[in-house]
Amino acid sequence: MLLIRRCLGAQRHARSAAAARLWSSSSSSSSSSSRDQRWRHRDDGTSWKHGLAGLLAGTGAVLAYGLHRQKAEQEDKSRVQTIEKASELPIFTQEEVSSHRRLEDGVWVTYKGGVYDITEFVGVHPGGDKILLAAGGDLEPFWALYAVHKQKHVLEMLSAYKVGELSAQDRKKQQSVAPSDPYSSDPERHPALRVNSLKPFNAEPPPELLTDSYITPSAIFFKRNHLPVPQVDPASYRLHVEGLARGVLTLSLEELKTRFPKHTVTATLQCAGNRRSEMNKVKRVKGLNWGIAAISNATWSGARLRDVLLAAGYGPDVAKWALHVQFEGLDEDVTGTTYGASIHLNKAVSEDGDVLLAYEMNGEELPADHGYPVRVVVPGTVGARNVKWLGRIRVSAEESGSHWQQNDYKGFSPGTDWDTVDFTSAPAIQELPVQSAITTPADGAAVDRSSEEVTVKGYAWSGGGREVVRVDVSLDGGETWQVAELKGGGTGDAPPGRAWAWKLWEVTAPLPAGSRELEIVCKAVDSSYNMQPDTVGPIWNLRGVLSNAWHSVRVEITEDESEE
Amino acid sequence: MLLIRRCLGAQRHARSAAAARLWSSSSSSSSSSSRDQRWRHRDDGTSWKHGLAGLLAGTGAVLAYGLHRQKAEQEDKSRVQTIEKASELPIFTQEEVSSHRRLEDGVWVTYKGGVYDITEFVGVHPGGDKILLAAGGDLEPFWALYAVHKQKHVLEMLSAYKVGELSAQDRKKQQSVAPSDPYSSDPERHPALRVNSLKPFNAEPPPELLTDSYITPSAIFFKRNHLPVPQVDPASYRLHVEGLARGVLTLSLEELKTRFPKHTVTATLQCAGNRRSEMNKVKRVKGLNWGIAAISNATWSGARLRDVLLAAGYGPDVAKWALHVQFEGLDEDVTGTTYGASIHLNKAVSEDGDVLLAYEMNGEELPADHGYPVRVVVPGTVGARNVKWLGRIRVSAEESGSHWQQNDYKGFSPGTDWDTVDFTSAPAIQELPVQSAITTPADGAAVDRSSEEVTVKGYAWSGGGREVVRVDVSLDGGETWQVAELKGGGTGDAPPGRAWAWKLWEVTAPLPAGSRELEIVCKAVDSSYNMQPDTVGPIWNLRGVLSNAWHSVRVEITEDESEE
Repeated sequence: MLLIRRCLGAQRHARSAAAARLWSSSSSSSSSSSRDQRWRHRDDGTSWKHGLAGLLAGTGAVLAYGLHRQKAEQEDKSRVQTIEKASELPIFTQEEVSSHRRLEDGVWVTYKGGVYDITEFVGVHPGGDKILLAAGGDLEPFWALYAVHKQKHVLEMLSAYKVGELSAQDRKKQQSVAPSDPYSSDPERHPALRVNSLKPFNAEPPPELLTDSYITPSAIFFKRNHLPVPQVDPASYRLHVEGLARGVLTLSLEELKTRFPKHTVTATLQCAGNRRSEMNKVKRVKGLNWGIAAISNATWSGARLRDVLLAAGYGPDVAKWALHVQFEGLDEDVTGTTYGASIHLNKAVSEDGDVLLAYEMNGEELPADHGYPVRVVVPGTVGARNVKWLGRIRVSAEESGSHWQQNDYKGFSPGTDWDTVDFTSAPAIQELPVQSAITTPADGAAVDRSSEEVTVKGYAWSGGGREVVRVDVSLDGGETWQVAELKGGGTGDAPPGRAWAWKLWEVTAPLPAGSRELEIVCKAVDSSYNMQPDTVGPIWNLRGVLSNAWHSVRVEITEDESEE
Repeated sequence: MLLIRRCLGAQRHARSAAAARLWSSSSSSSSSSSRDQRWRHRDDGTSWKHGLAGLLAGTGAVLAYGLHRQKAEQEDKSRVQTIEKASELPIFTQEEVSSHRRLEDGVWVTYKGGVYDITEFVGVHPGGDKILLAAGGDLEPFWALYAVHKQKHVLEMLSAYKVGELSAQDRKKQQSVAPSDPYSSDPERHPALRVNSLKPFNAEPPPELLTDSYITPSAIFFKRNHLPVPQVDPASYRLHVEGLARGVLTLSLEELKTRFPKHTVTATLQCAGNRRSEMNKVKRVKGLNWGIAAISNATWSGARLRDVLLAAGYGPDVAKWALHVQFEGLDEDVTGTTYGASIHLNKAVSEDGDVLLAYEMNGEELPADHGYPVRVVVPGTVGARNVKWLGRIRVSAEESGSHWQQNDYKGFSPGTDWDTVDFTSAPAIQELPVQSAITTPADGAAVDRSSEEVTVKGYAWSGGGREVVRVDVSLDGGETWQVAELKGGGTGDAPPGRAWAWKLWEVTAPLPAGSRELEIVCKAVDSSYNMQPDTVGPIWNLRGVLSNAWHSVRVEITEDESEE
């Protein structure tokens, strides 16, 4: 891996020089060679590589490809046509293709019978080094998993690298093992959901539905999948617990349900990218363009992780060498890489941590999209650590080495860009900061003057079990504030540090005389008296996570002319 | 007490009407009676009563009286002279005075031989109901304690209530028991300290000294006393632990030091009012006008509270009925009311809570100003709960009933004023929010252009053991940001949730070409990714606590003319 990185470094250097040449020539210049034409995208290799590393990881798909497509559309379309018409290319056997697996030998892949030398593309691949997993082989199984590739501009980009055709015999073999759509067995979803990405499935409920009930119905609970939903047979399901002195503990679903007391916790889960769309308005970020509803609240039941760890041999001595508890999902990509994340050991084993191995959501079996048959629920902690379709637990001195723990779900300074980011410099997001948003009225809605007052509703929540103790609402963009009424749960009901569930809130206020527009703003305060930052710009970060500035909506006050 | 409150309510109502009359008449009108003249201050009784309740509690003295003095100066001074010259007033005996202890009978007090009917003043007394403790008696012992009363405008206000003279015989008796200054045995203090209040003593170090060392020398560690420093004899000192099944556990200093393992914790303490002066600039608040240095960092050693509670019989069963651990100081006012506060039981008994009964600070015996011989250190928690001169610990189902727990040290919405505030609506401050400030350069300093760069230094800290993971610094008022280098402690050194000590930070940046002035801003991020709010206005609150908006200083860039 180190070797690959070093090679990519050298590549990048060479490309920079080539790019500098290219940008100084006109894009329609016929004097540039076809090889140079391949580099007619701007050479921001480092940026793409890091920035879109989340793509193969299933994140950032929609937005990133939006950017890419735009770029592709700006290209000279005739160039593509020229290449596609390109005369007789050589025929290669699969064996010849397979010998091009490394940067030193050139990296070749096949796609629908074509052979492509993508050596120079490796360094700028949005999905990062993972493209090398397809080296010497066929792209189709990968593209089936990451359906975002199946777009015209991606095919156009690929066509520029075509060097030959696969022999008819080998093509036939490929077709006989062509994969089915790995998402074909994903469950049905509720039609009300607003879909951010179909494959993998990511969707949020309409905000006005979100705060209709304190407990979010499972069907509209926001969905955030990184990979296809795995099909798990409950009878053969086994949970493996490793890393402890007694060796591996293996539990069937039945054992998990019967050997440990069933605990129930009402906990709000929030995606790190909730409200990312507001950061996107400041400056483009990489990631799914979530609105304000990548957050939901449910009742979860299952065994306590603490109890399972105790049964597996966890004792006070473990804390001397272990610092983390890692989780592996059963959802995997074509290379067999599973989703993974970890939490701090003290959260996992604390009686007050309330970490569950949940098999029920809102009193029913976990739905497929939410981790059937077993998921981790880590109250107060970012959604990404609440691993679904849980297959393995590992007590360890180390954090999870997964992409999602190491190179994603971290916050950076607004001054940090994809060229300067050092993912080791920031801690993996665990507890989330205080958050709130207005769900009613919607931005751009109108209120009639004759109604005399306006009712504003929303949600508020904070990570780490810190209870929301107050929500301030302003109708004038933050000049004056009033205190909203908190609903659900009731202030002070949860033990200190264990307020895992959100507060819904509401305020009804008279329409200010003379105003034609309201700028309604909300901000929440948690039990540590942390408050939300005023504006998005200074908390902007390249991954668009932790978007918790004041939320605001503009509402027009209309005059009902029928009354005149 | 309930009765008193009800009476005060009625009083207030009557006063409102009187005040309305008065405000409609010219202040120089000679037609208003001398009784009416007493009400020539604006009738904001509720405001004063609540707002300055902290005064008798030793808080808010300087500022509040600043406001009061200003008002008094606006009064017609000749009026006062008239009253002082007022001819033969009746002579009263102490017995007669003593019969006026209740609002129903009129409330009388004496002061230097004068007799005053302050019945109508009770409702507007800045120190609240506590004035009734002096009813029927002499003011001097109280004013000796709260030296803030000994100011000209206070005497002027009092003079308006004079109704007679105390008999010579009773005056003589009073003088024979006149109290000495209760602050006379307060310790010597370091001359570098910036004094906010002498009696009780409240002072902070100069900011530029503060960040000269990671561990603040005890002599310049900020001092925040509510009452005179008690003189405690270490030989007869006893710590009482109550509220547990086994009855009272009493420990001598020697027993505390020898029966329990000695633990050492480096922890930053911060006053809830740190940076209050910035809130004052937005709108006046009640409280000591702290700058940015009501925060310091020290090493504390002592017995763990958890260990002492275990020795006193604390077991898991206690958590079934107890929720709080109350602390009582040995510092007391003339009525025998001691300083008091409480923390949540789970913080007190958690192994990870690191709560100490400290007898050492920075490796030496606790200094008198910091609680000799024993104080509580509650890492991650507002200074006010770190009770000094600890006399008593009480495990309880209830929070401390003290003024400081119930009616002070709480946060409110910027829209809440002294007329609408309901202290029961907000939780007592425990963990503090994320904080940072710039200590160098000072606001208004100049940097010479020839130096080419500027070095900015400061501190950053967050409550609840949440480690500061990043400090962003801007030279242009928040438009662009760079990441400061964190010093001391080292990121990631503390176990998760136990980062009790601050981070000092530093950044050196080139002076921007063309700028004549820098607006240097800092903001910190903690391990829960909580950030500081951008501006002070929206977090303004009537007590001026929790002032943690971005800190900024303006620095002029001067051109060195000698080089021209």
